[in-house]
Amino acid sequence: MPRAERKSTGRRNRRAPRTKASFTQLPRRPFINTFKPVEIISEDQVEAIHLASLEILENIGIMVRLDEAREILKKAGQKVDEETQIVYFDRHFVLDALSHAPSEFTLHAPNPECDVPIGGDHMVFAMGASMPNSSDMDDGRRTGNQKDFRNFLRLAQSINVISTAGGYPVEPVDIHASIRHLECGRDFALLTEKPPYVYSLGRQKNLDCIEMTRIARGISMEQMLDEPSIFTIINSNSPLMLDVPMLQGIIEMAKHGQVVMLTPFTLAGAMAPVTIAGALAQQNAEALAGLSLAQTVRPGAPIVYGGFTSNVDMKSGAPAFGTPEYTKAAIATGQLIRRYNLPYRSSNVNASNAPDAQAAYESQMALWGAVLGHANFIKHATGWLEGGLTNSFEKVIIDVEMIQMMSEMMTPIDTSDAALGLDAMREAGHGGHFFGTQHTQERYESAFYSPILSDWRNFESWAEAGSPDAMMRANTIFKSILADYEAPAIDPAIRDELNEFVDKRIVEGGVATDF
Amino acid sequence: MPRAERKSTGRRNRRAPRTKASFTQLPRRPFINTFKPVEIISEDQVEAIHLASLEILENIGIMVRLDEAREILKKAGQKVDEETQIVYFDRHFVLDALSHAPSEFTLHAPNPECDVPIGGDHMVFAMGASMPNSSDMDDGRRTGNQKDFRNFLRLAQSINVISTAGGYPVEPVDIHASIRHLECGRDFALLTEKPPYVYSLGRQKNLDCIEMTRIARGISMEQMLDEPSIFTIINSNSPLMLDVPMLQGIIEMAKHGQVVMLTPFTLAGAMAPVTIAGALAQQNAEALAGLSLAQTVRPGAPIVYGGFTSNVDMKSGAPAFGTPEYTKAAIATGQLIRRYNLPYRSSNVNASNAPDAQAAYESQMALWGAVLGHANFIKHATGWLEGGLTNSFEKVIIDVEMIQMMSEMMTPIDTSDAALGLDAMREAGHGGHFFGTQHTQERYESAFYSPILSDWRNFESWAEAGSPDAMMRANTIFKSILADYEAPAIDPAIRDELNEFVDKRIVEGGVATDF
Repeated sequence: MPRAERKSTGRRNRRAPRTKASFTQLPRRPFINTFKPVEIISEDQVEAIHLASLEILENIGIMVRLDEAREILKKAGQKVDEETQIVYFDRHFVLDALSHAPSEFTLHAPNPECDVPIGGDHMVFAMGASMPNSSDMDDGRRTGNQKDFRNFLRLAQSINVISTAGGYPVEPVDIHASIRHLECGRDFALLTEKPPYVYSLGRQKNLDCIEMTRIARGISMEQMLDEPSIFTIINSNSPLMLDVPMLQGIIEMAKHGQVVMLTPFTLAGAMAPVTIAGALAQQNAEALAGLSLAQTVRPGAPIVYGGFTSNVDMKSGAPAFGTPEYTKAAIATGQLIRRYNLPYRSSNVNASNAPDAQAAYESQMALWGAVLGHANFIKHATGWLEGGLTNSFEKVIIDVEMIQMMSEMMTPIDTSDAALGLDAMREAGHGGHFFGTQHTQERYESAFYSPILSDWRNFESWAEAGSPDAMMRANTIFKSILADYEAPAIDPAIRDELNEFVDKRIVEGGVATDF
Repeated sequence: MPRAERKSTGRRNRRAPRTKASFTQLPRRPFINTFKPVEIISEDQVEAIHLASLEILENIGIMVRLDEAREILKKAGQKVDEETQIVYFDRHFVLDALSHAPSEFTLHAPNPECDVPIGGDHMVFAMGASMPNSSDMDDGRRTGNQKDFRNFLRLAQSINVISTAGGYPVEPVDIHASIRHLECGRDFALLTEKPPYVYSLGRQKNLDCIEMTRIARGISMEQMLDEPSIFTIINSNSPLMLDVPMLQGIIEMAKHGQVVMLTPFTLAGAMAPVTIAGALAQQNAEALAGLSLAQTVRPGAPIVYGGFTSNVDMKSGAPAFGTPEYTKAAIATGQLIRRYNLPYRSSNVNASNAPDAQAAYESQMALWGAVLGHANFIKHATGWLEGGLTNSFEKVIIDVEMIQMMSEMMTPIDTSDAALGLDAMREAGHGGHFFGTQHTQERYESAFYSPILSDWRNFESWAEAGSPDAMMRANTIFKSILADYEAPAIDPAIRDELNEFVDKRIVEGGVATDF
């Protein structure tokens, strides 16, 4: 691509390096959060937020835009004002509904080795999703497209700490919206073995994606009902509103026993009160409303409470992420959710325009909020930049390194006599060195975490190698993973059935759009 | 400076920006760690490491190279082998000695408003120190010199979250070693109002610096004895050895009631066993040995237990920092230290060669280790790169932002009815906006943390401004702080007395060197 044709990369002085990197990652293994959850607010404060949210539900109510949803809730005894479309949720109804939800469940993958445990002390990570743009050092920032979409899926398949692509890593706008969910659903099934995602943007899309998932797993719809195999994120239209397609998504996914993650987008100062407590009370009201609807449709349906409270930049109104307020809210949200015994979805987010130090420290604040809040499902765990407007290939690698480090930090410390190594101290002697001791020789190969991205060479060697900073090294690494990618094996009968379904639905025109 | 003459910056494609930044920081205020300390190992494991360290002290012993120190310990009943210089510390002696140490104390500053609380739930931050090189985007990486040394001190004075320069931010090798402590001590007193530091590199240096500190505070030596006003770091010569100048430092500082922070440099796999447990047991033995000597010299002398356990890169032997093992060790060290009821020193460290994403995520891992381990005194809190070989002016700003964010995260969440803001939700209405509500108008100016470095502009505005990444923005910020710097007021009598003392000692030749 000639230089003049490149779009703005925001990195005009930097060139992508040409060397090839090797990629040795952690094995596929559970990430168990061994820390006790941190309490950033008192039990009384948790109760105050909980009670405020119940008061919101009962007295301010939630606007429920779908007739069918209001009907379900009215039948379940809730007070409904048809003129305003506002539903007033009774607190006993809400808490009773939630009591039927599982606190832990498995999100089944086409390959059972890729099944995703959700809840308890498990932490799992989904690739960043829904970004309109993608970027890398080679071609800069560009509008989402199918080529990048597929490359992100290849990374999601290849990287062990990524449990699912978690949505469209980037929106492939070169596929018409009427058939995009079909083409993307096919790619999920052919390029990865990990659980797929469906956007709740119309009932038919939910149904198509559920069917593609069933085909990819090669099971019956009856088995699907008991085995969650696809998930959706429901964002409430904050403040205090649930939109038509989102409500359809709740209903269809719950009806089919599939996973509803309800995540209010409560930006303090914009779509929620300017205080953390107010934003959390509103978040809680919106989450409980949507989740209790899911439980009313199908008691016991797998649901997840998503916390996404952050604040805006009060100077510009722009959303900010990985801020101190974000981290506080993530930890406090964990306290709230444990009250309802539900799995907790959080995120790894930042507002930086480049995969630089800001991106890393804001992301770390978000990740630590998730760890200390005991979140179970970390969405947007990789690649997210610009408050979610760009998925950066280099940032994926930076995030994978950060997640692997967290995972390794959680492994237990061995304090056996052998590990304490007093004999090694005797052998090394006062002022001696441990490299040569038997204790070291027996352990050195696996003693410490081996990074994928961090560069520990001395300055001179590093400068001789062209002073590659983390972004440049990440560039070589993501390209080497793509170069080594192999598509997963798939049963030819399943592939044929999938293609047949997708092709038929495409011929039918997919879903109606107004453009 | 013409481009060809520049030293290698490791950033050859990047140019320092020319814009001026404004710097609005958090006010000077206590940083109270409101989190409960995290327990990464069980109580039994803490006890196992504790007991292993006592066994090391009793049966393997510590090599104590200074005759005077062995004499003091022998008098206190410890078993001493004069031939090997090994002292075998009795466990009851050690624990009894430590029981006299204060769990909290104040490090007094020349300006009482800059007094530093050490211990309890306080966290305080010292600038990165002892680096042989400094760097910035303008002139790249260069050997330490007085100009940079002074500029770092000016930043230490100007930035509220930095409690002390914490040593020589960079080693000014253009000042002869015989008088360096005198010139640097004078600079501490004239350029900052914060507590100074002394390197324990020979008894006379300790004495000179204690005297300069006394003069700068304008008090008597008797008052100094009860008011710790200067501190030193004692690094044991791991494994299991205390060197002559370090022992002189312990003795002189304790004798004068000044602060001894004992920090074993236990790099697992090099100067300590290749296991975290082994490195911690050795760290604990070395710390308890040195600190119990300090308490024997003067019971009740202010002491701090420093944890610095990390691991080496087993491929190259290079020290690594901010690793998963480092973070684990930092948290476990907190558990150990609470057993002895002593203040805890930790650090903000990384092994990156540039102030990039790696520098930020490794630093965050170190900072969170300090926060979750409940460290009190965070040394090398700003600027540290390359495992301590370079102090980066840009990294100072990145670190100040990260520390400010941590500080802000620790402020309490208000869950009063007013904060919960149900009236604001009524006012905004379903699907409405909170910008215009009275609740927002009353609070927006101080509702959220206002960053010094993070850039939340949208991509287009940012790209138009030249796509300045965090490093480039940090460059403009540190220069604006230096441009705005004003030297603190000092009593002319104190300044004269200080100059007289320093000039006299310089005429005397300072301290003897062999070069």
